[in-house]
Amino acid sequence: MAKQKKAPRPKAQTPKGFRDYFGAEVTERAHMLSQIAGVYHRYGFDALESSAVETVEALGKFLPDVDRPNEGVFAWQETEEDGNGDWLALRYDLTAPLARVYAQHRNDLPLPYRRYAMGPVWRNEKPGPGRYRQFYQCDADTVGAASVAADAEICAMLSDTLEVVGIPRGDYIVRVNNRKVLNGVLECMGLTDDAQRDAVLRTIDKFDKVGEAGVRELLGRGRLDASGAYIDGVGLSEEQAEPVVAFLTSKGADNAATLDNLRAAIGASAVGADGVDELGRIAELLAAGGYGPDRIVIDPSVVRGLGYYTGPVFEAELTFEILDDKGRKRQFGSVAGGGRYDDLVKRFTGQAVPATGVSIGVDRLLAALREKGRVGGAVQGPVVVTVMDRDRMADYQAMVAELRNAGIRAEVYLGNPKNFGNQLKYADKRQSPVAIIEGGDEKAGGVVQIKDLILGAKIAEGATLEEWKERPSQYEVPRDQMVAKVQEILDLYA
Amino acid sequence: MAKQKKAPRPKAQTPKGFRDYFGAEVTERAHMLSQIAGVYHRYGFDALESSAVETVEALGKFLPDVDRPNEGVFAWQETEEDGNGDWLALRYDLTAPLARVYAQHRNDLPLPYRRYAMGPVWRNEKPGPGRYRQFYQCDADTVGAASVAADAEICAMLSDTLEVVGIPRGDYIVRVNNRKVLNGVLECMGLTDDAQRDAVLRTIDKFDKVGEAGVRELLGRGRLDASGAYIDGVGLSEEQAEPVVAFLTSKGADNAATLDNLRAAIGASAVGADGVDELGRIAELLAAGGYGPDRIVIDPSVVRGLGYYTGPVFEAELTFEILDDKGRKRQFGSVAGGGRYDDLVKRFTGQAVPATGVSIGVDRLLAALREKGRVGGAVQGPVVVTVMDRDRMADYQAMVAELRNAGIRAEVYLGNPKNFGNQLKYADKRQSPVAIIEGGDEKAGGVVQIKDLILGAKIAEGATLEEWKERPSQYEVPRDQMVAKVQEILDLYA
Repeated sequence: MAKQKKAPRPKAQTPKGFRDYFGAEVTERAHMLSQIAGVYHRYGFDALESSAVETVEALGKFLPDVDRPNEGVFAWQETEEDGNGDWLALRYDLTAPLARVYAQHRNDLPLPYRRYAMGPVWRNEKPGPGRYRQFYQCDADTVGAASVAADAEICAMLSDTLEVVGIPRGDYIVRVNNRKVLNGVLECMGLTDDAQRDAVLRTIDKFDKVGEAGVRELLGRGRLDASGAYIDGVGLSEEQAEPVVAFLTSKGADNAATLDNLRAAIGASAVGADGVDELGRIAELLAAGGYGPDRIVIDPSVVRGLGYYTGPVFEAELTFEILDDKGRKRQFGSVAGGGRYDDLVKRFTGQAVPATGVSIGVDRLLAALREKGRVGGAVQGPVVVTVMDRDRMADYQAMVAELRNAGIRAEVYLGNPKNFGNQLKYADKRQSPVAIIEGGDEKAGGVVQIKDLILGAKIAEGATLEEWKERPSQYEVPRDQMVAKVQEILDLYA
Repeated sequence: MAKQKKAPRPKAQTPKGFRDYFGAEVTERAHMLSQIAGVYHRYGFDALESSAVETVEALGKFLPDVDRPNEGVFAWQETEEDGNGDWLALRYDLTAPLARVYAQHRNDLPLPYRRYAMGPVWRNEKPGPGRYRQFYQCDADTVGAASVAADAEICAMLSDTLEVVGIPRGDYIVRVNNRKVLNGVLECMGLTDDAQRDAVLRTIDKFDKVGEAGVRELLGRGRLDASGAYIDGVGLSEEQAEPVVAFLTSKGADNAATLDNLRAAIGASAVGADGVDELGRIAELLAAGGYGPDRIVIDPSVVRGLGYYTGPVFEAELTFEILDDKGRKRQFGSVAGGGRYDDLVKRFTGQAVPATGVSIGVDRLLAALREKGRVGGAVQGPVVVTVMDRDRMADYQAMVAELRNAGIRAEVYLGNPKNFGNQLKYADKRQSPVAIIEGGDEKAGGVVQIKDLILGAKIAEGATLEEWKERPSQYEVPRDQMVAKVQEILDLYA
């Protein structure tokens, strides 16, 4: 007779590209987001938490390089009875839902509408190292304000935000550019062929990597890249390419000089002139608010999401150095960016609604704060009350209650108390600063033993005999002085 | 020639059963959750944010009344290339993911593992009034602790949590029961027929609704319900039904009396005796921690999720009265519940791992706090700096920067400034307490006008002439006293 097969056990595994966050990973992010929310609130921005699930129809196809429907998003079809057979999907960013929310609720929302949103988004993309399919975004946008005062305000808010979360002035710069200036440059080059125009835009995007000489080569005949491969050029003459190079290298000694250079680069283009004027107004408004070029600066080398933005674009870059994987120094780099996009709501209502906003890379900014030592220091675990006598659990429960009532993080050991070594190992795993012991003798004598586990660990690591004598790592105190003594030890390490 | 059809515009609409949350709805919830996290932290619980997406295999089928796979969850199949063709789904609660997380990471986690989790969950169910397909849960669980000290701790933490968020002592009660006692009762009834046993359990569940007499009828021949329909009974004799009734009505004047009554109800059942002993130990531990029966009480009428729990079960009920839809007084009712469940991790590892936990109904508790006036009072909007002269936007920008630097929530009007009435309407929609006006005359005179909009609204609603004279609603102050005067007005309404 064949043996009956048991159903196999399910695998305990997050889906590919997803992960879990534990302890400080969760609380540090929550703390940073609440600091950011505080700044946004002060600027008059209101919180919005839109549904995580949208109809595919409402989400639209704004993901880069997406041709096939539902590519890049997690999507499924509703049954007829539950939802009319609609295709639903998880949001892939916080901007597409904002457009839907604004179109849906516009009669109830103030105009202009300033809102911030924080939460996970999902991308159905191939995961890679450090690249997950669920991650946090943190956005602030102003919908319905055509004035560049709205863009300037977002830049100021971004600058304040970075300082509030712990990036000191001087360690970051917000760089501002304008898509219209670039359009002006292309116009004055007389590029009418769309393919050639796109090729120029793609080349501009590589400026950061290949520099001025590289861009000249790529705009012309082509370039031998570092790997030895030959990259075909756009095929422009040196003269034709000049305005692009002038544009990219027009950053001057101050904003005024940069604006002069840009005015030269755009020639007679009207849209270009409009773009330069907007940058001038932004610089003026920021100066009035006290935001000098040490914090926010006009910089034409910022080139973001070319197809998406329609006016000012901005990027926050952290300028302090870190070591990369190979031990080489490099700047930390971009942690936030955004700009003006005027056509998102139009899909729904037919009316163009001007909008501008910024998105902070939550994980990048957290990583930066860790680099700066602003988060992620030694985590202090709870005080652990050990269990010497399992029949006296009520006594131990009373102890933790006392400690908690004094505001001290504390727990009683809830595992099998038989092996005391396991209890101390547990306290170690919990990174507990203090363990409390009350055996039968202590109970009879009206005292408790209080172990300073941080000092204990130091001694175990090889303190000198003098240190050992000077400060014992275990104290016997009367039971009614337990809380005070624990507090005294915690204060040593606060 | 037929006209070419344009693609229809997408509908700006959340999917059926989903909704968006605006402003205070978001921040009030976030504030409450952060208060709860504070209590959980103090009890030694660590934060966990698991992936919102799980494999269907890992989630399992713990939803009530679910026979078909993927029923009740939002699920989709991965493509072969992205994820091996796995079925993925959105989590429907925070407990199933905890089981997966614990099984996956058990070698790195402390034992016992105390964790809390807060976040949205999704149910693919028919939405109804006030019943959404995405909602928040807030859970705390202890995995790996067999001792009822873990259950007692959860009850104490639940009690502390309610008080910290703003439910005063006396307005809530945490009621504790034990599934083993109920098993003991069924055992001593000698019920061996599974169908009959289930029928008895379903009847017990109706105790809250139909009371003692109703339960007696339902356990016997049956009952004519309020609608006139006849409900068939279980068919027990009065004698047979007696232990069930004794169990349900065994709450005595104090915990000791209740425990005595329960001991009588379970007869000679060993599992029943075990259950009563556990309840006794829980009462003792809670008393030692200072949690008297005014906060946490043994109450056998608590019957929760019969199939799911294996030991102690508990429920937090708010006892203050509210008016229902029909204007009748009723108790606010349950806002949290939980209990011991020992088999969730076993699915993955084959090993039974004891666990106990509580889940707070986030929306219910928020609604209760609104009832008690603890959240949702008048929202104060930002100070609005109006734009009298669009060419002097820089001046207005400087004003908001000053206000914000003083910690005052402030914004400049970013819409079209032509119509001043629209600016005041905007301030009204924003619930602004104060508007600031600086026209050409004020600028020349070095002053600003500060409008107290709250008082202004009161006057508009019909203040007396005396009130009007006593406190004007608009002040002219020197420009350099703007911040101080605004602060003075805000302090009046703080």
